[in-house]
Amino acid sequence: MVRKLDARERDPREVIGELRRPGGFLSEEVRDAARRIVEDVRERGDEAVLEYTKRFSGVRPEPMRVPPEEIERAREALPAEIEESFRVAIENVRFFHKQEMGRSWETSRGGATVGQRVRPLRRVGIYVPGGHGAYPSSLFMSAAPAQVAGVREICVCVPPGLDGKVNEWVLAVAGLLGLEEVHAAGGTQAMGAMAFGTESIAPVNKIVGPGNDYVIAAKLEVFGVVGIDAPQGPSDVVVIADSSAFPERVARDLMAQAEHLSGASSVLISPSAELVEAVEPLLSGEPAEHISLVRVRDLAQAADISNHYAPEHAHVISEDWEAVMNNLREVGMVGVGDFSPIALSDYAAGPSHVLPTDGTAAWASPRSVNDFITHTNYMHFTQEALEDLAPHVERLARLEGLENHAESVAVRRKN
Amino acid sequence: MVRKLDARERDPREVIGELRRPGGFLSEEVRDAARRIVEDVRERGDEAVLEYTKRFSGVRPEPMRVPPEEIERAREALPAEIEESFRVAIENVRFFHKQEMGRSWETSRGGATVGQRVRPLRRVGIYVPGGHGAYPSSLFMSAAPAQVAGVREICVCVPPGLDGKVNEWVLAVAGLLGLEEVHAAGGTQAMGAMAFGTESIAPVNKIVGPGNDYVIAAKLEVFGVVGIDAPQGPSDVVVIADSSAFPERVARDLMAQAEHLSGASSVLISPSAELVEAVEPLLSGEPAEHISLVRVRDLAQAADISNHYAPEHAHVISEDWEAVMNNLREVGMVGVGDFSPIALSDYAAGPSHVLPTDGTAAWASPRSVNDFITHTNYMHFTQEALEDLAPHVERLARLEGLENHAESVAVRRKN
Repeated sequence: MVRKLDARERDPREVIGELRRPGGFLSEEVRDAARRIVEDVRERGDEAVLEYTKRFSGVRPEPMRVPPEEIERAREALPAEIEESFRVAIENVRFFHKQEMGRSWETSRGGATVGQRVRPLRRVGIYVPGGHGAYPSSLFMSAAPAQVAGVREICVCVPPGLDGKVNEWVLAVAGLLGLEEVHAAGGTQAMGAMAFGTESIAPVNKIVGPGNDYVIAAKLEVFGVVGIDAPQGPSDVVVIADSSAFPERVARDLMAQAEHLSGASSVLISPSAELVEAVEPLLSGEPAEHISLVRVRDLAQAADISNHYAPEHAHVISEDWEAVMNNLREVGMVGVGDFSPIALSDYAAGPSHVLPTDGTAAWASPRSVNDFITHTNYMHFTQEALEDLAPHVERLARLEGLENHAESVAVRRKN
Repeated sequence: MVRKLDARERDPREVIGELRRPGGFLSEEVRDAARRIVEDVRERGDEAVLEYTKRFSGVRPEPMRVPPEEIERAREALPAEIEESFRVAIENVRFFHKQEMGRSWETSRGGATVGQRVRPLRRVGIYVPGGHGAYPSSLFMSAAPAQVAGVREICVCVPPGLDGKVNEWVLAVAGLLGLEEVHAAGGTQAMGAMAFGTESIAPVNKIVGPGNDYVIAAKLEVFGVVGIDAPQGPSDVVVIADSSAFPERVARDLMAQAEHLSGASSVLISPSAELVEAVEPLLSGEPAEHISLVRVRDLAQAADISNHYAPEHAHVISEDWEAVMNNLREVGMVGVGDFSPIALSDYAAGPSHVLPTDGTAAWASPRSVNDFITHTNYMHFTQEALEDLAPHVERLARLEGLENHAESVAVRRKN
């Protein structure tokens, strides 16, 4: 059943407390299990990965690595229309993420040159979840930004299906992207393999991609040995709409996010009692269990509640969208106006659909090229510039008791 | 004793295996202890924080928050010369990090507008380690980039000394930075407090700053609830120098990094047998235990070994520095030329001294404004732009079995 709230006279924190969203800690059992599996893979390599895959997926894919010919074959087997749609989507994702690419820079003051070099990671692991369905879009939404960043080695891990094979759509997308390294390996054991390396999977520098609680726990376990991205949980959307919105469209937006079911949340926040009343009867079935309708005083209160919720997606339908946009702070992706339903960016508008979920928009960003680069800072001082800074550095180093630090500067001064 | 290696005919991976650097997993005991303390602070708040501070530091600082007058008093008590040195350092750090600040952007193609907004985090927690020494520089090396990013609320936690007070230099720097919220709270319990909030410490969106293994374990424990930075471990430097380098200066560079002792590593990599021979007798005392001298064929091999080591700092002393710089990939901070000893950037050259340690330069970046911002992506489509993209989005959504996603687009088409 749809949940209805009248928030007009209430504190936003209290309202948020009533909106559905699970989240919180991983259980100790999940963490312990993930730790054991990761350690086992670290010690026993491929054999451990295969055993766990057999145990959890019922199959033992040997070799784990998909032969490049199979990737090529899957790409060639794509129906022309579907191939075109994938190509359009991939091109738009590449275009968007090219815009966000940072640049190296350098600047000088009085003989003191400082700068920063941007460079891609050497080798990245991308996890594509499987199991209940196949999500080929999940592959290009991480791999295309990695390629824009300049990453040369991309290792893709996908849990095999009941036939022991990687899904054909996922392989076809790998082919379209020009990726050659796909492994039929999933879950915790794939995380261990990518972090420490096995006979058939070389270790990566960073692991990204969504997964279940065990995958998240495994990533936390290997963080430090490799980089990881922020945990991605169930999907959510906040639709902020006023009386200008069409109820049947808003209902579709809510149902779209809610059809992810498990843990998903759709929240309509509206100052219009008429809209809320008109949308409610259009929501049905199991997805409706994941939908909340929140009546507010005005659009400012709507944005305030949204910020406390920190949604993965927001869809703003109002003539006053600009004011709402300026008030929205903690959100991953915003669709502006009636013609920007979130489904567009879920597949093909350009921004990655890998977004901060579960309130993490308060500190995490959407998947971006920044996930696949690092900076190196540098300085290049003349002797004069060193002389200028030396007294300060020597003083502060001695204040912290680091005499050799001070001396490494002093030894380079003229006097 | 100094360790000497002849790497001229050896594989870089093998050489790296022999260079001193501990690292690796946190022990299960440390992780379990951190988890228990964090959970306890989550449940019992201030009282738990105070109990653990009493147990680990022997004091019970009440109130935990340093009164703003004490911060002001510490700043006023600064000797003029030291104040000037802190001010110069802070100004240079601000200048450097202003250069790296990303910008919001927007672009349009055929009625499809997409863009990205950059915004600062709302509230950040900065941990400043204490214990053996006082590191006031550690505060401005994180807080100044956070301020440049535009963060308004900065919560500083510092373990109290034996007198139950926060170190005067650290307080003085807080005053110079205009920070008003400093708590006498350290270790695991401070991480729990900043993540979940207590009666006296409001919860933050992200926690940054170096700490011991327990602090790192606690950060991993709360990751997901809040953001964290990459773990920072013991300091290291690689000095790449040829026969143009002065042995007594190189020796100072090595001793400077090695004087951090516990876990620290200094490595000279040089094609010059003469330099290695001349440096060796200049290294002495306990720091010498942390120093390795590596003879290589040429500067290209030096850069190759450095990349495999992925040092926190590199110092390049050679006429051919440009070639070396172009070969260096995995490193946090580089000093170029004889007049750029790492101590300059440890204190005052501009780049933050909070850097990727323990080989994490392979995937992590130096402290930057990027640690303190998030992106929000957005799209704003006209109906025509929606019509153009609709067939592709509907096709891909249906291929993944997400019918409502397809419908949320279809319902907005003209026909």
